[in-house]
Amino acid sequence: MQFISEQRLGDGVLEREFTLGEIPGILWTPESASAPTPLILVGHPGGLHKMYPRLVGRARHAVAEGFAAATIELPGSGDRPRSDTAEQANADLHRAIAARKPVDDEIVERLVLPLVEKAVPEWRAALDALLALPEIDGPVGYSGGVIAIGTRLVVVEPRISAAVLFAGSYVPRIMFEEARQVTIPLHVLLQWDDEGNDRQLALDLFDAFGSEEKTLHANMGGHTGVPQFAGEAGNRFFARHLK
Amino acid sequence: MQFISEQRLGDGVLEREFTLGEIPGILWTPESASAPTPLILVGHPGGLHKMYPRLVGRARHAVAEGFAAATIELPGSGDRPRSDTAEQANADLHRAIAARKPVDDEIVERLVLPLVEKAVPEWRAALDALLALPEIDGPVGYSGGVIAIGTRLVVVEPRISAAVLFAGSYVPRIMFEEARQVTIPLHVLLQWDDEGNDRQLALDLFDAFGSEEKTLHANMGGHTGVPQFAGEAGNRFFARHLK
Repeated sequence: MQFISEQRLGDGVLEREFTLGEIPGILWTPESASAPTPLILVGHPGGLHKMYPRLVGRARHAVAEGFAAATIELPGSGDRPRSDTAEQANADLHRAIAARKPVDDEIVERLVLPLVEKAVPEWRAALDALLALPEIDGPVGYSGGVIAIGTRLVVVEPRISAAVLFAGSYVPRIMFEEARQVTIPLHVLLQWDDEGNDRQLALDLFDAFGSEEKTLHANMGGHTGVPQFAGEAGNRFFARHLK
Repeated sequence: MQFISEQRLGDGVLEREFTLGEIPGILWTPESASAPTPLILVGHPGGLHKMYPRLVGRARHAVAEGFAAATIELPGSGDRPRSDTAEQANADLHRAIAARKPVDDEIVERLVLPLVEKAVPEWRAALDALLALPEIDGPVGYSGGVIAIGTRLVVVEPRISAAVLFAGSYVPRIMFEEARQVTIPLHVLLQWDDEGNDRQLALDLFDAFGSEEKTLHANMGGHTGVPQFAGEAGNRFFARHLK
């Protein structure tokens, strides 16, 4: 992990860009902390640059609550090499949604499974590097992003002890068996009127999660319209579980 | 409205029992308030005596947040005259649930519609009397209880400006047309693993509500196991909308 830039954002937030091999990432920490802080991994749909305004907003909230926050670019997004098969599957998905047809699970598998396969080990490697920093300690939370990545990650990664998942993208039904293996406390956000998602699939996934404590917060406002109070509820969930 | 008892509960909460004609009720107010307070109507499934420990807990929270809280007995519950047709319908409902059969809408209509017809005018009359007290002013919220009563009440009663509804009892599908007429901000609680409720019916009802701001909070813990943090989220919803 190599730090390549450092900047003070104000309000006591230090932002550092880094690379982990070929993968770009960003770390936000309190400028001054008397002890190592817990960490929130900040998920996103891919494209650090495009997503930056939202990511930094979420990171500022996390730091204000006493957490460090970190994210890395997804495979095939931002400046990372594109995957032709993923782009084709994504085009097929959007064609099916635009035609208001049921989305074939085969398309979802083609889009999501290779992404999960590649991304999850990268997030785990990032976690290794982040937890090796003296200013960061556990416990670790995972928040948002591609819900299939979050699902796999919290099953295979025992260092993550609570997760806020955003049910805003398709999950292949073949992954429901993994969802049943999730046992950590979950806080799932669903945009009820998400124009690019399958609500029933999201509800079935929530039902499948094996966690004894799982909460679903469904709101209006479309895919990108998560209300501010819903974000604050996610912060309170982490405050309950990571402190 | 006649006050029949008065008692200080500690923590600055004054509890007064009252009758409104033949209907018993309870009012909780701050012992000392510099101005008239907003009001939360505290719904319940019937049986003020049996429900008292929970009701007073919710009322204490409301008063701590600067609200008055009030409730009245439901028709056919507590010491009020029983309805033979309602008791028969209730027995039919529980027989169907115990047999794990789909519950016929005819049973739900027989159970719920007469209750709604009787209860809603009583809550409105209670609201008239409560708002005539010098220590209470608007805005008014409605919280919990039989969701069919809450649905009808917030459609016909323009003085209620926000509601926390508990999707923990059956609503006849014939009432979905009324649900579409609800326009105030709604916060709906659902126990995902409620053993005595129909989850799909509850989700369909949430979908039907016409409100631009509506939120569903689904949690685990069975019918009576609403987690403490879910109650607190309801309080924050009222704080956002009634202050």
